[in-house]
Amino acid sequence: MKDDIDSLCRELQETWHREIPISKSMDIHVSGFSRDRLEIRAALAPNVNVHGTAFAGSLYAIAALCGWGSTWLALKRRGIDGSIVIADARIRYARPVDGVLIAACMFDPEVQAQALQRLVDSGRTRFDLTCHIGEGEAPAATFEGRYAVRVSASASG
Amino acid sequence: MKDDIDSLCRELQETWHREIPISKSMDIHVSGFSRDRLEIRAALAPNVNVHGTAFAGSLYAIAALCGWGSTWLALKRRGIDGSIVIADARIRYARPVDGVLIAACMFDPEVQAQALQRLVDSGRTRFDLTCHIGEGEAPAATFEGRYAVRVSASASG
Repeated sequence: MKDDIDSLCRELQETWHREIPISKSMDIHVSGFSRDRLEIRAALAPNVNVHGTAFAGSLYAIAALCGWGSTWLALKRRGIDGSIVIADARIRYARPVDGVLIAACMFDPEVQAQALQRLVDSGRTRFDLTCHIGEGEAPAATFEGRYAVRVSASASG
Repeated sequence: MKDDIDSLCRELQETWHREIPISKSMDIHVSGFSRDRLEIRAALAPNVNVHGTAFAGSLYAIAALCGWGSTWLALKRRGIDGSIVIADARIRYARPVDGVLIAACMFDPEVQAQALQRLVDSGRTRFDLTCHIGEGEAPAATFEGRYAVRVSASASG
């Protein structure tokens, strides 16, 4: 099981770097996965802004990808190939990020049980996910995104 | 006056490319400014996603920079050097973008009159700005951002 997850995390990062070139320019990489929680990181240098801290757009992008990746992993682990797009999102910035960018997102199967069931029943669903930026007690930024998912035509559910 | 604006737009783009390296990786450039409306563009290739359309994070970043740039231009034209940061933002994606990324933002001096006055009076303010993504009748995405501004210590107001 651990090997499967490591392999999926590698596939996720390779997919991003191959098919979303800006994720490679941003130096985004998977840094951990445990108990349905995905963590990804990016160096500050390529994501710096005029203030010498992390660019708000990069913080959004890493959070958006973290939610996307959490969803992708949750589906893959259930043998589902889905098309995942963000329908809308909100981000609140609490304080600047002056070091490595860290985003974490938990795809809690209990919280998402109804949405997962809708996907199985109808081939479509939406997942509302929260991603936190930064380490420590209070997040530096909080992202809430709604991800629209459709089972791919060629996929086996 | 036109020359001044062209010069400021060049300075804006140079500032972005020099101090926000990801804006250069994204190929973001100023494509027009007229009647308080700033338009910026980016090629699709560096901003593409797994679906072959524009990455949601790139659409957010170009909109966020468009609002930031509109604010920067509005301040510069009034002789104000300010520190501009995004406090929070929301983006709604209506449809995919399958060509060049175009973002437009209007900094309407009438709408922003009170917020501008607060900046003059107290050295701090917030501007609520809306940026639209895409051309044509209905925007492909709509971004609403709150920008917190503080007059720089060295600036003359």
